[in-house]
Amino acid sequence: MSTYTPDPERDLVLERTIAVAPERVWAAWTEPELLVQWFTPAPFKTVAADLDVRPGGRFSTTMESPEGEQYPNTGCILEVDPGRLLVWTSVLGEHYRPTPPSNGADDLAFTGRISIEPTADGGTRYTAIAIHPDPLTCRRHDEMGFSEGWGAALDQLVALMSAG
Amino acid sequence: MSTYTPDPERDLVLERTIAVAPERVWAAWTEPELLVQWFTPAPFKTVAADLDVRPGGRFSTTMESPEGEQYPNTGCILEVDPGRLLVWTSVLGEHYRPTPPSNGADDLAFTGRISIEPTADGGTRYTAIAIHPDPLTCRRHDEMGFSEGWGAALDQLVALMSAG
Repeated sequence: MSTYTPDPERDLVLERTIAVAPERVWAAWTEPELLVQWFTPAPFKTVAADLDVRPGGRFSTTMESPEGEQYPNTGCILEVDPGRLLVWTSVLGEHYRPTPPSNGADDLAFTGRISIEPTADGGTRYTAIAIHPDPLTCRRHDEMGFSEGWGAALDQLVALMSAG
Repeated sequence: MSTYTPDPERDLVLERTIAVAPERVWAAWTEPELLVQWFTPAPFKTVAADLDVRPGGRFSTTMESPEGEQYPNTGCILEVDPGRLLVWTSVLGEHYRPTPPSNGADDLAFTGRISIEPTADGGTRYTAIAIHPDPLTCRRHDEMGFSEGWGAALDQLVALMSAG
């Protein structure tokens, strides 16, 4: 569904206007060779990404710690509106198969909703929403540093895609 | 994704040709006032259904035992190809919010995929696939009586929709 109003008790929201064109934000999210360059806040990094950008397609990434430990993340893409909206979840894998969440150190159940809207000056109004099962999981994600983590990753996206 | 090959270790399949036109099978699945009349094998019954038939929409039903105990089921619709394909999951609720599965007596994590294909004589080739996280959950669903249960419900659908 194309519109969504966040639930303040169960959702976390990162909203920012960035000087990157919508189609370049979309590319950064959907092209594996770009995604690996910004997706994980340093000093962690994303060392692999395997995406099939359509409903039911896989959204798999592997994060690596500074010590070299690897954390595979599996997910499933749910909704795709090219250049505008990408929705995926950590509780399903490819073909919508239910899967225990696996996101590295903490295995959070959440759905991610990335909304990309053009601004008048050619930039993007970027809204990332993490949708959780309950207030407790939401607070846990918040205390793990959702805003800092997703914000630092977005800084990396902006640096990468402004340079190109 | 429109095509899917079942995994024999983790999926259960009910496949049958029925003398009901595809558009009537679709109606039985997507119109609440029809769904409640066939969805649960007797002597259990479905006493309420609340559907929003689009990706991210709710798929909520309430089952009632012969003793009058009620079991609410929550789910989320994932894919809709009117008259052809309906996919939903028990591990998400409306707006793709992750949710602990709730399906009455047993809380099974699964995704349901209902495929409806026209036959040459006006009937339907009906394929229902239950997609599970792992072989153990799949065997549990099998031992709970997947084939008998989904088969008996389908008999009720055929009886209902042939009468109309």
